[in-house]
Amino acid sequence: MQQPKLSVQAYKGTRDFYPEDMGLRSWMFNTMAKAAESFGYEPYDGPMLEAFELYAAKSGQELVTEQLYHFHDRGNRHVAIRPEMTPTVARMVAARIHDLTQPIRWYSIPNLWRYERPQRGRLREHWQLNVDIFGPDGVIADQEIIEVAIEIMNAFGAGPDDYEIRISNRRLLNFFLADILQLDANGCAAVCRVIDKKDKVDEAAYFAMLSETGLTEEKISNLNAFTSLSIAEMATHPASHSQGARELIQLFEGLRLSDLSAYCRLDLGIVRGLDYYTGTVFEMFDKHPENRRALFGGGRYDDLTGLFSNVPLPGVGFGMGDVTVMDFLKTHNLLPELSPPFDIFFALTSQDDMRDVFHYAREFRRRGFRTATQLEPIKLNKQLKQANQRKIPFVALRGPDERARNLITVKNMFLGEQVTGSFDDVVARITDWMACC
Amino acid sequence: MQQPKLSVQAYKGTRDFYPEDMGLRSWMFNTMAKAAESFGYEPYDGPMLEAFELYAAKSGQELVTEQLYHFHDRGNRHVAIRPEMTPTVARMVAARIHDLTQPIRWYSIPNLWRYERPQRGRLREHWQLNVDIFGPDGVIADQEIIEVAIEIMNAFGAGPDDYEIRISNRRLLNFFLADILQLDANGCAAVCRVIDKKDKVDEAAYFAMLSETGLTEEKISNLNAFTSLSIAEMATHPASHSQGARELIQLFEGLRLSDLSAYCRLDLGIVRGLDYYTGTVFEMFDKHPENRRALFGGGRYDDLTGLFSNVPLPGVGFGMGDVTVMDFLKTHNLLPELSPPFDIFFALTSQDDMRDVFHYAREFRRRGFRTATQLEPIKLNKQLKQANQRKIPFVALRGPDERARNLITVKNMFLGEQVTGSFDDVVARITDWMACC
Repeated sequence: MQQPKLSVQAYKGTRDFYPEDMGLRSWMFNTMAKAAESFGYEPYDGPMLEAFELYAAKSGQELVTEQLYHFHDRGNRHVAIRPEMTPTVARMVAARIHDLTQPIRWYSIPNLWRYERPQRGRLREHWQLNVDIFGPDGVIADQEIIEVAIEIMNAFGAGPDDYEIRISNRRLLNFFLADILQLDANGCAAVCRVIDKKDKVDEAAYFAMLSETGLTEEKISNLNAFTSLSIAEMATHPASHSQGARELIQLFEGLRLSDLSAYCRLDLGIVRGLDYYTGTVFEMFDKHPENRRALFGGGRYDDLTGLFSNVPLPGVGFGMGDVTVMDFLKTHNLLPELSPPFDIFFALTSQDDMRDVFHYAREFRRRGFRTATQLEPIKLNKQLKQANQRKIPFVALRGPDERARNLITVKNMFLGEQVTGSFDDVVARITDWMACC
Repeated sequence: MQQPKLSVQAYKGTRDFYPEDMGLRSWMFNTMAKAAESFGYEPYDGPMLEAFELYAAKSGQELVTEQLYHFHDRGNRHVAIRPEMTPTVARMVAARIHDLTQPIRWYSIPNLWRYERPQRGRLREHWQLNVDIFGPDGVIADQEIIEVAIEIMNAFGAGPDDYEIRISNRRLLNFFLADILQLDANGCAAVCRVIDKKDKVDEAAYFAMLSETGLTEEKISNLNAFTSLSIAEMATHPASHSQGARELIQLFEGLRLSDLSAYCRLDLGIVRGLDYYTGTVFEMFDKHPENRRALFGGGRYDDLTGLFSNVPLPGVGFGMGDVTVMDFLKTHNLLPELSPPFDIFFALTSQDDMRDVFHYAREFRRRGFRTATQLEPIKLNKQLKQANQRKIPFVALRGPDERARNLITVKNMFLGEQVTGSFDDVVARITDWMACC
């Protein structure tokens, strides 16, 4: 009796990357890496599994209780599949805190896991670029991190018509809520939670939620005016003398001097959850009317390594997920046409030619051409058709005619031209063809 | 009261990759990928988690009962962290069996997990290059796969004095055991299991284990002579007319014509476990006397996709682990000196220079130089010392003197020379320096 066949479906909420998908993924990751490296950021990576406590201690409650993949290993260690990279990088930096030269500029593109209901922009496995600078506590580092994010978007071909970076400061928001609205710590936290949901609900629901925290109508109106301030208006606001406001003014001045004003605007409604962040926070938004979600974001934290070390280490960074970025690039028609998987397809029409085909394929590779060979003789027309479908630029042939005269034929599949000549002659011709197209 | 600090250790049997480790890892993976792509192999990837049944059905018993990481997700799906890539690639190919043009040449460099006692060459998380060709059932595909493996080793700088590929054929071994030694199926399997352990025990223990399977002394002697045959000797052996022997003779003839004989030798004691393989099998061995273990191996299987599909698909491939390869490269002094993380370090000695430093760092990046800036003014000597320690080739400076004359100073840290000039002048000088070194 035949065994029932297993499903070919990937596990729910994950993706298989076929070669064409890998081409786009590699292009995306290389673009990110190259932009980060142009600022001197260095790559790192850590293991897929970490001790459960790394997330239990610091990550948001929802993540741990509802989204974390965790289990006990065969040695009864409680482990989790990493849902975010920050605890790993904090552990790694803490382990060498006395040896690493500051500022520490690091990036990574790990895959991360969360048990989510799969939907647009959210999968159970996704990759996320993490870019961080550890050590400096000045706003100038915040500016650099925002410049790196913009440089990556530029490298993707996106401009200020496609996206904007909305910037706020947690210190300023806390000052406004505590010193101007006169809220206590619980009140501040409750209002922050509501502001964080502002973009996910309509205006009426937003005001209703604010009311529920106990805010008076006057304070709601006051808050609403505050979260709508432009950077120019903020300079004359009663909160403008606070440290957070001074940081924002300095940051926007720096961005202006770097010719980056067109990409950035103040949005004091940006909160970025309740964890980690203590100063500058920012989110990147798609300007396309059908996709109002934040693409990614980041911010400043006072102490990255507190879980592991008594040496405080401030930092600033951001995380950029591959799923949302890919959606963005598709929406804005910014995906590149992929180059062919190899340069030369070496056809085979008779078993007798096999030795010659292998020999000259090796010679083509030595000259730097990626060369794949047909391994079983089939009709030449079928081989040409397959090469054409796969957009391979050149097809080589060494049949009985070519062998008799010690020549090779190469056909340019895009131009429809072909050349028959010595090996060196056809290499020269292919080189010319590749240089001009 | 202060919270006790968490350990900075990575999970047992895993590695943290600091930038210097990532430099080597990227070099290794890029070298592998480039060699595979030169033969027309295309990259793919799948999810870290797969359904438990993918491994339960086909993988070796020890792997599933002792080494597999598996658990139930929040939706009670029984899932496993991939311990090998073959079930994933089989699932992916089966899903598109009617759409993919054969031969299918694919490679991947996934991270894999096994619950092992960490020891030299074995960790719980490791990466493994997988190279496979699906479709052709001829020995010529086996030859190509072996050529790819040799090309990768060549690209690492290893030669025939450093390693050898030992090649056998499961069909021939089965023929010898069944038709010449006249063993039944159970006897064949028992003897295969012992042969597979030959390199892990001494000679006396090996013969004792063979005896335990019920083999007579004469048959043991016969088997021992068989597994010691050279390819020339095999041509006159009683088994030489069998299909497996003919495949081996054809394979070695092809390798000879490809000038690869120096890398390869017949070793009929190569088994590669009991699963999957049905024809050619091979293992790569370090020739260094202190490291007699197989570095990696592979072989041919009749039907990759049988778990998922009724369309049979033969294939041949190999897997190459990063830990054993890294050990090999270290032993043979083949690790490269890494290039510096960036080209130019832009020093900062006064907060007043910050704007200029940011401006000219951006200009350097636009000219293609990876440029990191100091973000907090400290003594210049300390900055030069740090740049020197990190082997950064150039340090740029724009202090009050330079600003007054609108010039920039760049110091070549290797030569000890420095130049002060206009931005274009120093760019030209750096370009010259980089071209000559």
